[in-house]
Amino acid sequence: RLRAFLDGIQHGSDLADLLEQLEDEDRVRVLQLLAPDDPALAAEALAEMEPDEHPEDSLAALNAVQIAAVVAELSDDDAADMIGEMAPADRDRVLAALPHQDAGDIRDLMAYDEESAGGIMTAELVTLRVNQTAAQAIDEVRRQAHGMDEFYGIVFVVDEREVLQGTVSLRDLVTADPSTSVRELVQDPIAVVLPETDQEEVGRVVSKYNLTIIPVVDGGGRLLGGVTFDDVIDIIEAESTEDLFKFVSVSAEEEVRGGWVDAVRLRLPWLFINLLTAFSAASVVYLFEDTLSKVSLLAVCMPVIAGMGGNAGTQALAVTVRRLALSSERSGTPWNVVGKELLVGATNGLATGLVASGAAFLLCMATGANVLLAVVVLLAMLLNLTVGGFAGAFVPTVLERLGVDPAVASSIFVTTFTDMCGFFLLLGLATELLL
Amino acid sequence: RLRAFLDGIQHGSDLADLLEQLEDEDRVRVLQLLAPDDPALAAEALAEMEPDEHPEDSLAALNAVQIAAVVAELSDDDAADMIGEMAPADRDRVLAALPHQDAGDIRDLMAYDEESAGGIMTAELVTLRVNQTAAQAIDEVRRQAHGMDEFYGIVFVVDEREVLQGTVSLRDLVTADPSTSVRELVQDPIAVVLPETDQEEVGRVVSKYNLTIIPVVDGGGRLLGGVTFDDVIDIIEAESTEDLFKFVSVSAEEEVRGGWVDAVRLRLPWLFINLLTAFSAASVVYLFEDTLSKVSLLAVCMPVIAGMGGNAGTQALAVTVRRLALSSERSGTPWNVVGKELLVGATNGLATGLVASGAAFLLCMATGANVLLAVVVLLAMLLNLTVGGFAGAFVPTVLERLGVDPAVASSIFVTTFTDMCGFFLLLGLATELLL
Ligand SMILES: [Mg+2]
Ligand SMILES: [Mg+2]
Ligand SMILES: [Mg+2]
Ligand SMILES: [Mg+2]
Ligand SMILES: [Mg+2]
Ligand SMILES: [Mg+2]
Ligand SMILES: [Mg+2]
Ligand SMILES: [Mg+2]
Ligand SMILES: [Mg+2]
Ligand SMILES: [Mg+2]
Ligand SMILES: [Mg+2]
Ligand SMILES: [Mg+2]
Ligand SMILES: [Mg+2]
Repeated sequence: RLRAFLDGIQHGSDLADLLEQLEDEDRVRVLQLLAPDDPALAAEALAEMEPDEHPEDSLAALNAVQIAAVVAELSDDDAADMIGEMAPADRDRVLAALPHQDAGDIRDLMAYDEESAGGIMTAELVTLRVNQTAAQAIDEVRRQAHGMDEFYGIVFVVDEREVLQGTVSLRDLVTADPSTSVRELVQDPIAVVLPETDQEEVGRVVSKYNLTIIPVVDGGGRLLGGVTFDDVIDIIEAESTEDLFKFVSVSAEEEVRGGWVDAVRLRLPWLFINLLTAFSAASVVYLFEDTLSKVSLLAVCMPVIAGMGGNAGTQALAVTVRRLALSSERSGTPWNVVGKELLVGATNGLATGLVASGAAFLLCMATGANVLLAVVVLLAMLLNLTVGGFAGAFVPTVLERLGVDPAVASSIFVTTFTDMCGFFLLLGLATELLL
Repeated sequence: RLRAFLDGIQHGSDLADLLEQLEDEDRVRVLQLLAPDDPALAAEALAEMEPDEHPEDSLAALNAVQIAAVVAELSDDDAADMIGEMAPADRDRVLAALPHQDAGDIRDLMAYDEESAGGIMTAELVTLRVNQTAAQAIDEVRRQAHGMDEFYGIVFVVDEREVLQGTVSLRDLVTADPSTSVRELVQDPIAVVLPETDQEEVGRVVSKYNLTIIPVVDGGGRLLGGVTFDDVIDIIEAESTEDLFKFVSVSAEEEVRGGWVDAVRLRLPWLFINLLTAFSAASVVYLFEDTLSKVSLLAVCMPVIAGMGGNAGTQALAVTVRRLALSSERSGTPWNVVGKELLVGATNGLATGLVASGAAFLLCMATGANVLLAVVVLLAMLLNLTVGGFAGAFVPTVLERLGVDPAVASSIFVTTFTDMCGFFLLLGLATELLL
């Protein structure tokens, strides 16, 4: 029956997709049946499940023998991630089921912050000494890389104190004369990171230098582990999700497949912040209640001015935030960006303001209202989109300078600002020109 | 002087960052000086520059000898990308500077859609036949992979008609007994893509199976090329930028470092669409002009109800769009998502509605207005956030079902919808309950 279920499953990633469709108990049943026969497939499927699907719960539900079999096939970084997500009691039970040495290695990895290089690295590397010959080195690679899942042909060369000297590729070892010393073949490491480096920075470095694996070294240069490209891809995807979420004020903790109660718990605080900002926009309107009661068409214009300013500001914000997220250089000329966005906002404000003003003119003619409203609409639109462009670029640029993640400049702050300015401009100009 | 400039530059990616800071003429001057000495560094820098920085313009500005030297060091996919971006006259001049065979190979790659697997693949692969021994295969790898930049230890095995049989790793060749036949070592390809497969799908498959290189085969299974993980990382980053931009209605064509004129040209059409949608929200307000003139506090409540509904709807939209973008399975139970978001919207609408209603009550007490306004605010908030949650999940889910990219469900449509509903609910309920 299990075989029928698994028919056509070649790869752990496919099994992961299937498991994700099952209820929790069925996932555990499949893993229990699979663990004795094919623990490697079970391990790969668990490692490839989305973290949102909580593979650690399925692992913790197995018995000690099954756990030992499956974890032996997990790579150390995936084991540390999964065991790190467990409740303390499960964690101790799972670690107790493992050989002493493995449990210690996994505990070491679990000590690092989970969003740091240490938290995503594997300690299972192929390492050589400089005083070996190419032929000896190949034998060594053969021995160390045997059965290693994630070997991409890069070998790390260390000295007797484990200090990283550089890297050599298996290709170069194979291509070299067998008696060549590794010392002659070793190349300086292209880039290294510290264990405490944020995963986002690790992603930027790996992406910049196109590395399959980046070495992680301590302050003394000792090789601790390596971060592999597949985990970097997962991080880049997770960070993009986080940035989009922050942009619209959804918590980074929200899981895309999470339940509704968690969604309420995580979104409600942001909505209350939004409510406060909305009250400040409303209070601007309240200031001009008298003007509004005299020129009731102004209420019709309000959503147009505020909405357009918010949209133009959000456009500027998105382009600026993304520019900051992608740029590895921290110098550059970011203040130019503010000038550019101000100019873009003013130009777009003029263009859309003319059209909106034409519409307002026709409305005034039709209703007999004061045609100067058309002038008020033009000026309010022009100025509000200028303000939107300025704020959309200025806010994230300042945050970046202050060392704050510019993505937290979530659009609600920019749109509140354009709402307030829009109402103030529209109603203030109307008070001056129409009353 | 150039040496002083290049002091400390180890890697093309670092030079690329430096070139990006220079004016166009200075970039060309650096490349002209570098091309005879170190064409590989020049090539790597061009390949690693952001496409927004138009490396093809710098390449086209070189003379024929320099072009030939630099392009010889570019990998074929990067050469095809750069030459493909040039004006036809430049393109012909550059191709004429290359050896006939290379120009032909690059032309072949340029024929594919630039956002397809064919458009991002390299044709420079290491290939073997099944009837070789491991020892012969290693010799063959040594020969073919010599000087190849992007060799990650994966060798493709093809038959005499170039049909892909599978892959074998250099590690397995080295580990095996030298007389073993490649036939015994070859493994089925984990995944393949067609040349016309969209790059976003290529990214999903590579991310799912953690491949350093994915083979691209034609309908008959013939091996055409491979897409490497570094280009996949660039694609995932570009697609994330595109999705954020679409989300806030910025064109995917806008360059994060582009000039202001392009930004105006690309954003203005979206702002005009937004103006039309804003007019429809305004016309709802116009319908209730009479009510507004009687209860002027309603104008104060308008931005709160509309803004909160828009924010809740945008939250639901972001979570749903990201869920659809990341899921490789196309089945699943997406309608549940709509139910979940509706429930989240209703709950958050009740919570924030109670607070807003309390504020409205105090305002009515202070100004002597009809306290039933507090009830109107509660109901309008509750219903508008429910509508926002529903629309935020429903719109992208339907688009996905129709085969349209759900990211185009840009937030303006959802926020216009919540504006219209918010105004209709607030002013409609007020007309019923307060007049
Ligand atoms: Mg999956
Ligand atoms: Mg970890
Ligand atoms: Mg982070
Ligand atoms: Mg890269
Ligand atoms: Mg890993
Ligand atoms: Mg992984
Ligand atoms: Mg981030
Ligand atoms: Mg291309
Ligand atoms: Mg695309
Ligand atoms: Mg993956
Ligand atoms: Mg490439
Ligand atoms: Mg590249
Ligand atoms: Mg896309």
